[in-house]
Amino acid sequence: MIKTSIRNVSKRSVKSILSYYSVVNPISRVVVPNVTKLAATHNYSTTGTKIQPRLTSENYPSVKRDPRYKQLTNENIEYFKTILEPKCIIQDDLDAFNEDWMRKYKGQSKLVLKPTNTEQVSAILKYCNKQKLAVVPQGGNTGLVGGSVPVFDEIILSLSGMNKIRSFDKVSGIFKCDAGVILENADNFLAEHGYIFPLDLGAKGSCHVGGVVATNAGGLRLLRYGSLHGSVLGLEVVLPNGEVLNSLHSLRKDNTGYDLKQLFIGSEGTIGIVTGVSILCPPRPSAFNVAFLGVESYEAVQRVFIKAKKELGEILSAFEFMDLKSQQLTKAHIQQPAPLEEEHSFYILIETSGSSKEHDDAKLEQFLEKSFEDGIISDGVISQGETELHNLWAWREMIPESSQANGGVYKYDVSLPLKDLYSLVEATNERLTQAGLSSETDKSKPVISAVGYGHVGDGNLHLNVAVRQYTKEVEKCLEPFVYEFVSSKKGSISAEHGLGFQKKNYIGYTKNAQEIKMIKDLKHHYDESLILNPYKYI
Amino acid sequence: MIKTSIRNVSKRSVKSILSYYSVVNPISRVVVPNVTKLAATHNYSTTGTKIQPRLTSENYPSVKRDPRYKQLTNENIEYFKTILEPKCIIQDDLDAFNEDWMRKYKGQSKLVLKPTNTEQVSAILKYCNKQKLAVVPQGGNTGLVGGSVPVFDEIILSLSGMNKIRSFDKVSGIFKCDAGVILENADNFLAEHGYIFPLDLGAKGSCHVGGVVATNAGGLRLLRYGSLHGSVLGLEVVLPNGEVLNSLHSLRKDNTGYDLKQLFIGSEGTIGIVTGVSILCPPRPSAFNVAFLGVESYEAVQRVFIKAKKELGEILSAFEFMDLKSQQLTKAHIQQPAPLEEEHSFYILIETSGSSKEHDDAKLEQFLEKSFEDGIISDGVISQGETELHNLWAWREMIPESSQANGGVYKYDVSLPLKDLYSLVEATNERLTQAGLSSETDKSKPVISAVGYGHVGDGNLHLNVAVRQYTKEVEKCLEPFVYEFVSSKKGSISAEHGLGFQKKNYIGYTKNAQEIKMIKDLKHHYDESLILNPYKYI
Repeated sequence: MIKTSIRNVSKRSVKSILSYYSVVNPISRVVVPNVTKLAATHNYSTTGTKIQPRLTSENYPSVKRDPRYKQLTNENIEYFKTILEPKCIIQDDLDAFNEDWMRKYKGQSKLVLKPTNTEQVSAILKYCNKQKLAVVPQGGNTGLVGGSVPVFDEIILSLSGMNKIRSFDKVSGIFKCDAGVILENADNFLAEHGYIFPLDLGAKGSCHVGGVVATNAGGLRLLRYGSLHGSVLGLEVVLPNGEVLNSLHSLRKDNTGYDLKQLFIGSEGTIGIVTGVSILCPPRPSAFNVAFLGVESYEAVQRVFIKAKKELGEILSAFEFMDLKSQQLTKAHIQQPAPLEEEHSFYILIETSGSSKEHDDAKLEQFLEKSFEDGIISDGVISQGETELHNLWAWREMIPESSQANGGVYKYDVSLPLKDLYSLVEATNERLTQAGLSSETDKSKPVISAVGYGHVGDGNLHLNVAVRQYTKEVEKCLEPFVYEFVSSKKGSISAEHGLGFQKKNYIGYTKNAQEIKMIKDLKHHYDESLILNPYKYI
Repeated sequence: MIKTSIRNVSKRSVKSILSYYSVVNPISRVVVPNVTKLAATHNYSTTGTKIQPRLTSENYPSVKRDPRYKQLTNENIEYFKTILEPKCIIQDDLDAFNEDWMRKYKGQSKLVLKPTNTEQVSAILKYCNKQKLAVVPQGGNTGLVGGSVPVFDEIILSLSGMNKIRSFDKVSGIFKCDAGVILENADNFLAEHGYIFPLDLGAKGSCHVGGVVATNAGGLRLLRYGSLHGSVLGLEVVLPNGEVLNSLHSLRKDNTGYDLKQLFIGSEGTIGIVTGVSILCPPRPSAFNVAFLGVESYEAVQRVFIKAKKELGEILSAFEFMDLKSQQLTKAHIQQPAPLEEEHSFYILIETSGSSKEHDDAKLEQFLEKSFEDGIISDGVISQGETELHNLWAWREMIPESSQANGGVYKYDVSLPLKDLYSLVEATNERLTQAGLSSETDKSKPVISAVGYGHVGDGNLHLNVAVRQYTKEVEKCLEPFVYEFVSSKKGSISAEHGLGFQKKNYIGYTKNAQEIKMIKDLKHHYDESLILNPYKYI
């Protein structure tokens, strides 16, 4: 196959490789899946390596149902009928609500409530609080730590019925919507007005705006637009006792009192249910570029990052790295030729976005030419135009699915100091191999390989342990090892996925005793009856 | 005097006016003062129009000392001597600590403590909490709402003895320091490493990093780098009972538990004393430009803003507007020719900053040429190079001092929807004139004029009512009128200056009953004895 690379064109303009790449590379037909599509392909029948969802209560027998919570009765259902229309009270076919997207957790809820406005959410919580009925708030149910599904028989309060855009100010870029608006719908709406939602992630086709706020999702645009703690301007929240905190402000600056909304950003539905969001959206960049590069060491990844921050400055909008194994798994899964002909130890995806295509092209070309001349990068392609851009992104975005394709995947989402970021992947592979649990070829071993990729710009590593099957042995080998490793480097055991059910007991690896005391104290302060999202978070 | 303007050069490159301007304009010797210098020139003797500081307790006789608080005794002093070195316990010449920078508030503290480390702060608060001794935390004492000075005899805990930079990571840009580091010193340190502090304000020569965090200061770079809620990564805080919350993380992403630090950002020292700050600093832009424009209506200001957001996009780093009267006062005060020869109804200062001078120049020139051709702007100059840039900024930054130069100034710092921003200035002038209180020429009237300027990009108006003297009549004419006006437009009565003593009773104009209840509840939750910064905030 004819391939063009920076190496081949070092003395010409790097830009000239673009048209060549897009013409000759068959990957242009790979479509980046979103979670909606992936969810639809879930196969619940036995297919050899596919993993069957088991009840969380069976998988974790030490976690017991708290007898403080009342069992659901017909009387309760009758009461809910006075609040909600019949179609908003669901009692059959609840698998899609009880199971998480990873199919790692499965609850046993017998009731899903789908309120369509804030008053209904308030009435439901007021009643549940009095009746001591436990409640799990659920958005798009795309979380990865079992936070959005019940553990036992908690009532599921789905926000999917609250899906209206409330307002948009074209001068300031301030957007207000119900919590249940799907992220992609919000972004498409904003695109029509020349604005962009300041957050993007793989699950955008399913996840809710309220859900990303409640979990403080990070995603792909954090490097450029910062965290939700900075961009969310106001929230409407229903407290566990049914009180409504209407703090849906549309002011970029407001220094009158403690910033209450911040408590709910990342609270994972444990002290209130977010029902409305006000968020500041930046102007949509008119020019996008993606470069896909090969480098030979993790040290080179860091050098390219420092250089990119300096030279691409304000137009740098993503800096992702991927290791070789993650790309090998992806290649095997999507069955397409890779963007670069030869294999490299590490790959980097750089995205720029700005207001002038001409200027951005010039900056990126100059940056790449110099990096190639300096010998920091070995090979690379630039893709311009939307299709090529999505095709290159696919090699990053397909990793989660590819890691899971041979059976399952243990996913860890951690923050580490940049210099230590990749050492966790190396240490994990070493540990799994020494334990005799891992082999890329020997199919009798449960583990295929640990792979690493993630948002270098945010110090955020995704460690995916691709397995043929989930076993207790593998789990014991990984935990608490991964958390201990992260703790020893003063990292976070959950960079962006949250605590949920999976990490409830591990918060001590990141937070100290005083912090944990204060977090617990806030939980008890706002949710005295502890009805919201029990068995999780803290 | 020879002047060049966009009008004169509309068909040439706008850039060509630069050298001309910098050569012929004598303003190049105007130096932007910082608060240190201004404070040093305070004249406490009677000088006609200069205002004498009176005790807050005299000015506000309805505010009574709370008898819950113990009076300071020699025994207390003896105890503090066991914690601090003698030089850190100050009992004489306390005026500079008791008076605020505006000289509007004056407390009667008899004791200033200057701890040099977190353990000392902890020991002091633990003791004061037990003894019921009220404490006012004080940073650079540059606040504008009387938040950093005592009202009665509260002990002043000054953070100025804690002024060490703790660490800096050159790869990630994460900077950690003691709370008492002066903002300008922090920024100068960062500049040496190619980084920038993500906040800048006029008081940078005096204000503390901890102080700007505790008050959630906004300032001049918010448009570009967002609020401190997004950029602060971690805090070290001493709670009222002396417990130390060590949450000085250096992770860009960490989703493990409620984001506790957020509670203290903007808490104005009422629930804890910030002793250490960890903050993410962006790379320092290598190219800066400033344009100073004249337009004929507030509607034109808005049109230029929308256009600038779109066309300057990622390089737009400040968008300030000033009305004609603010510039007339400034001109009279600094005795220099204005940047534009003729007078205009409004002026706009646009700053761009980026990584390529060539690209930024091209974007700005194209933007200005088109705006001029479209007839949105009437006149303008671009200044490049550091001296010219500072000179143009001076016409914005000198407004506060110029407003005060004839006697005093009532300052309001509010957020309003962009379309309503300037109407407050017009309404205020109308009201003052109708009340017979205002005249630009008749020196028997207390008010000269209300002027408006501020951060359009953030919806933040500074309303300055320049007065010859402070009178109860003027105050009654202004308050609660200004707050009622802001409330009617759903704005904030304090965009960035905070509540402090001045706005304690007015929070209800911006926050609703549920919000106020939750804010009060948090205050009582964390400061049961209410020893921290009493008589203020809530």
